[in-house]
Amino acid sequence: MTDKMGKLSITPPQTQGATNVTRVEHKVTPESRVRKNGHKPGVIWLTGLSGSGKSTLAIGLEKALFDHGFQTYVLDGDNLRYGLNKDLGFSPEERMENIRRVGETAALFARAGFIVISAFISPYRTDRAQARVAAGEDFHEVYVSADIEVCEARDPKGLYKRARAGEIPDFTGVSAPYEVPEAPDLVVDSGHQKVEETLQDLLDYVSEKFTLKS
Amino acid sequence: MTDKMGKLSITPPQTQGATNVTRVEHKVTPESRVRKNGHKPGVIWLTGLSGSGKSTLAIGLEKALFDHGFQTYVLDGDNLRYGLNKDLGFSPEERMENIRRVGETAALFARAGFIVISAFISPYRTDRAQARVAAGEDFHEVYVSADIEVCEARDPKGLYKRARAGEIPDFTGVSAPYEVPEAPDLVVDSGHQKVEETLQDLLDYVSEKFTLKS
Repeated sequence: MTDKMGKLSITPPQTQGATNVTRVEHKVTPESRVRKNGHKPGVIWLTGLSGSGKSTLAIGLEKALFDHGFQTYVLDGDNLRYGLNKDLGFSPEERMENIRRVGETAALFARAGFIVISAFISPYRTDRAQARVAAGEDFHEVYVSADIEVCEARDPKGLYKRARAGEIPDFTGVSAPYEVPEAPDLVVDSGHQKVEETLQDLLDYVSEKFTLKS
Repeated sequence: MTDKMGKLSITPPQTQGATNVTRVEHKVTPESRVRKNGHKPGVIWLTGLSGSGKSTLAIGLEKALFDHGFQTYVLDGDNLRYGLNKDLGFSPEERMENIRRVGETAALFARAGFIVISAFISPYRTDRAQARVAAGEDFHEVYVSADIEVCEARDPKGLYKRARAGEIPDFTGVSAPYEVPEAPDLVVDSGHQKVEETLQDLLDYVSEKFTLKS
């Protein structure tokens, strides 16, 4: 906020007559949000195998962008699976619905002016294409590229081990496919680079695509 | 953004080692979002009959708050029913799920630092209680109070007329109940006041509850 407020007031009056309660258009334009925030909005859609580093990168990117003054927020399993999507299990249909809702929620955040970062495996092209439709031109697909051997060697949550033991059905990369993006907006090599290097690649991309040219 | 950026950099490095990709906590704290935005976050949950003025008030409040420097966004039927909730019809179960998702999405926006304003009839106490649980102490229930006679006389979308003709089943106030909030955080009298007056009441409330005391 730019000024210390005393009493907030409607200046200038922006409302319609009292009896006019028909549908009204939202009055805060996308352009005015860009001016306020100092950057463009959008969805940074991280896709990649389990263990490729999506969550680490999302959280690191959020922190770095926030520290640089951006409005930013991460959507991931932690805040979606226990809230908005807590009614969904892990059947193919429910996974599709999970990703659909992430895409629609991300689009809302972009419309609100945010750079929203999503971190989901999202293995299917059709699901990611649907998320792109929801956000339109503000959608940026980022392939977090790491070979399955690398991811399985990391196995941070022990999921690959359980999947190989047959305890997790339809596990991406083991018993279910991962469809590599055909035309991602960015590819980052999280299989060979250090996290800091990959984060810098992401920051360079954001700097190019989201900052305002003066 | 406070400075013109050249190359964005990770300063200081916030990342973990390259091989450490276990679950990491979000590093942007709610407190740091409050400091950046200059105000507290929360959900302004407008509830009331069709025609009570929720959408008009939500959009007017968003505009006024935005102009005062707040980060704010409206969730309403326009941006939810055609996106996140487009799979939902109007059966009792689907209406409940509609409101549940609105509540969870609103909670995400509040966690991201926003004052998010929702404008849905949300006629049932249990549904609103669930939305309050999702957002926790950041939830503010606002009863947009207008008698059904007033709302029906306005009938901005012609819905009451259609409901009376039996064309819309389970229409709130006509053939389905509206459960008046028992302990709302705020009641605004949109039945008798001008929109400008009701908006001022909402602004006064926000000023009291969301601005930082210096």
